[in-house]
Order: sequence, then C-alpha cells, then structure tokens
Amino acid sequence: MHKIYYPYEEFKEDLKTLTGKIDQPFDAILGIARGGLSMAQMLGEYYDLRQVYALNTIGYDGTEKKESVEVFNIPDLHSAKQVLVVDDIVDSGDTLIEVLDVLNEKYPEVTLLTASIFYKKTACMKPTWYVKEPKGWVEFFWSEDLKG
Amino acid sequence: MHKIYYPYEEFKEDLKTLTGKIDQPFDAILGIARGGLSMAQMLGEYYDLRQVYALNTIGYDGTEKKESVEVFNIPDLHSAKQVLVVDDIVDSGDTLIEVLDVLNEKYPEVTLLTASIFYKKTACMKPTWYVKEPKGWVEFFWSEDLKG
Repeated sequence: MHKIYYPYEEFKEDLKTLTGKIDQPFDAILGIARGGLSMAQMLGEYYDLRQVYALNTIGYDGTEKKESVEVFNIPDLHSAKQVLVVDDIVDSGDTLIEVLDVLNEKYPEVTLLTASIFYKKTACMKPTWYVKEPKGWVEFFWSEDLKG
Repeated sequence: MHKIYYPYEEFKEDLKTLTGKIDQPFDAILGIARGGLSMAQMLGEYYDLRQVYALNTIGYDGTEKKESVEVFNIPDLHSAKQVLVVDDIVDSGDTLIEVLDVLNEKYPEVTLLTASIFYKKTACMKPTWYVKEPKGWVEFFWSEDLKG
C-alpha cells in the first residue's frame, strides 16, 4: 500500500479542523494508547481539561478471521458525564468498538463520544467526528521523526 | 517570567538528544498526564514498546507552603521490570517525587527510571536523564498551537 508521511504541521491543522467539527460538550478525554496520546494531550490543552486519560489495547489474531481486542488500564470515569474517546485512525474499527463496549459495560451512565483524525469507510464503526480518509498507509510523525 | 515558545521541531531534536543519553533498558514507558503524553508516545514508537501507559496527578495547595500531589489512574505494572517515567518538565519536582513514592509503594519490585525534557536545578529531585534547563516560562507547542 502507498505510504504517506503525515507531518506534525498537518496534524496541527487537522486538529484545528476537528475542534471546528466537535459540537457536543465533554468533561474528559480518553486517548487510546499509543495512537491517541498526542491527540488527547493537545485537545486537553485546547479545551482546558485536566481530565485527560489513557487506556491500552492489545489485538490478538483469533483462530477465525476476526481479531479480538483486549482493553486494559481503564481509568476511573465515575466523575465524568461525557467522555471523548480519541484515536489517530479508525481503520477496521475493531479496537474502537471493543473499547466502547468495555467502557459502556463498566460505566453505563457515561455518554461516550468518539473522534479520530483518519477514518476508513470500510471500518465497522464511524466515529462521532473525524477529519479525513487516509489515501494510503499513514506514517505518522510520531513514529517516523526520531528515526535516523 | 520570560515566556519562551517551544515548537515541535525543538521537541523532536530534544527527544533525539534524550534517546542518545538514555543508557539503561526498560520495558515500559509511563507518561505523567498531560505533559508527558506526547513524549511517552514518541519514545514508545522509537523503542518499539507497546507498553506505553499514563497516570494522572492533581496538585493541591496545602495550608502550609508545601503542595500535596494526588496520583491516580495508576496502570498495572506487574509484568514490568524497569519502567521509564516521563514528564515534559521537572519544575519543583513535587509531582515526580510523589509519583515515584506511590509507584515504589505499589510496585516495590519494579525499577523506576525517569526522564524529562526540561529540569530546573532548584527542583527537589533530578531525573535520571534530562535534556536541558528552561531559560524562562516554557510555552509548549501542545498548549499553544491550536490557539487562534
């Protein structure tokens, strides 16, 4: 697949676009590690929210086609009403679906909103807000810029 | 205090400097939110570690001079041997000291290493590795770049 380098400057502009689209309130931001961490930090600063959390996922190849996803290090969301769950890219959508399932089960009273920079139309779920579709394999600055 | 804008390009170069200094192994990275999140993400990519975690702190002004710090959303570190705790800046050092105390108490078998971009010589503790001293009030790109 065609590789496309995604620089910080584009990320910054895309986050500005994203904040222009986000039209519902939230009182906490939850970044899916690793991909959503920088995004969670910058959005936390922008919205002046100190409630910026992270969780972890591991994907396992199942015996059948479907990948299974384990979600762990779930933060305490008892004092939150609406949580914005963020990730860099919604690709298959498997990770985001599983994260929402686990959070919904643990915190049924919390409203979950979702945002990503990239979203593939073939994904099994669409985030509440996203910026654009990837035109190839995205090589994010955070994975490229310390090389060499 | 003199304000100094800290752009992404400088952050990137400083992280390269930091990775050149880090000379001990670790199997997990723990970013102190919010300041340490981007750093944790980029170092996780660089060291090819998926064990990139976060925790939260809140500082309270005590009745006396000393600030007290509450540490929460502590990730599960049972499978880690050495953990690199990262934050953008070690200013007073109060946050880092409290984080290390809490982690040492909960995970006495885990070796804790620490790294920051900035370190003030007046801080009550020095990170294992750091890049430089701040020459004023640092305005990080992640808190400035989405404004306006």
